[in-house]
Amino acid sequence: MRVRNRKGATELLEANPQYVILNPAEAKGKWHEIFGNKHPIHIEVGSGKGAFVSGMAKAHPEINYIGIDIQKSVLSYALDKVLATDVPNIKLLWVDGSDLTNYFENGEIDRLYLNFSDPWPKKRHEKRRLTYKSFLDTFKRILPEHGEIHFKTDNRGLFEYSLVSFSQYGMKLNGVWLDLHASDFEDNVLTEYEQKFANKGQVIYRVEAEF
Amino acid sequence: MRVRNRKGATELLEANPQYVILNPAEAKGKWHEIFGNKHPIHIEVGSGKGAFVSGMAKAHPEINYIGIDIQKSVLSYALDKVLATDVPNIKLLWVDGSDLTNYFENGEIDRLYLNFSDPWPKKRHEKRRLTYKSFLDTFKRILPEHGEIHFKTDNRGLFEYSLVSFSQYGMKLNGVWLDLHASDFEDNVLTEYEQKFANKGQVIYRVEAEF
Repeated sequence: MRVRNRKGATELLEANPQYVILNPAEAKGKWHEIFGNKHPIHIEVGSGKGAFVSGMAKAHPEINYIGIDIQKSVLSYALDKVLATDVPNIKLLWVDGSDLTNYFENGEIDRLYLNFSDPWPKKRHEKRRLTYKSFLDTFKRILPEHGEIHFKTDNRGLFEYSLVSFSQYGMKLNGVWLDLHASDFEDNVLTEYEQKFANKGQVIYRVEAEF
Repeated sequence: MRVRNRKGATELLEANPQYVILNPAEAKGKWHEIFGNKHPIHIEVGSGKGAFVSGMAKAHPEINYIGIDIQKSVLSYALDKVLATDVPNIKLLWVDGSDLTNYFENGEIDRLYLNFSDPWPKKRHEKRRLTYKSFLDTFKRILPEHGEIHFKTDNRGLFEYSLVSFSQYGMKLNGVWLDLHASDFEDNVLTEYEQKFANKGQVIYRVEAEF
């Protein structure tokens, strides 16, 4: 998700250390301490404006959520949502998805969400797709054995690519939805992006894949 | 594919032993002999009215094709197509897809096609779906190591189910198409069924999966 630079984004993030982890490298291995409990930790890589991660945190108080985005302005909008949601089980992290091992110990994360990731449709940009094998290497390390990635997107090409990429990596598909909103899948929490596409009746794809 | 009983179907099949294998159990292990060459052998399980298997045979003279269907009347319509196509690299087999090891030696088949298989949408009929694990057991035996199944369907539920079933079985997905006719996939040979749905603009799914 690309947005215009937001004036005051940095100040807003810095003013809310109860939600925004300002020194992420120091958090590595200490996430349960940070949350103050032993609940499972689920992260969303590319959390955009935060509707999903804050909606999930509200719906599942027994899980800790971390929303991660590389763009400061985007993360500041997510912070707006988090402040409005006002639940203790959510943190935001302003870092790049490619070096997550700097911020999480091996196995420290219990589940990873990818929602409407940038499709990078050109073949020469394949390595930038979050479901490319080098990202899977990283995700595998911070997840436990048999850890799961839950991924949804409206982008057909990226979804086709990702199913094959997961499979070639040796991951197992535990569930596939080729029209999520027409299915009997319950408890779907929509992202901002998804809401827009749902209103247009566009197909949303979803997969649960396990290492 | 269900069709009404066709009068004279048996006679038509019996009158064309150059195309129809009338004693399939005797063919086991002798398929290269039957075709008179060492070319790879590809089979279509559930070949319906034969447009796919005869179209493929015409397009790929370097491959031997066998169309298999359990319904005699359906197979007789396939025979009409085969007679019209008039190529030597095709045979028809009137047997059930569940006991293919009676008719093929281990590894005797080089590739297996499933096209628009009966979706059996009710959960209690799962075992009848051709991508259910017991069928995969059979298919794996008659295919070589790393043998492939190429499967296409318009049925979303069956496709979702099959991707998961292949993956849970330990198969790798080598390619997935979520809108085959909108893709750049070349050399697609349409089945009768597919032609009808393509005309309506309905989505066709396709996957190549490897043992």
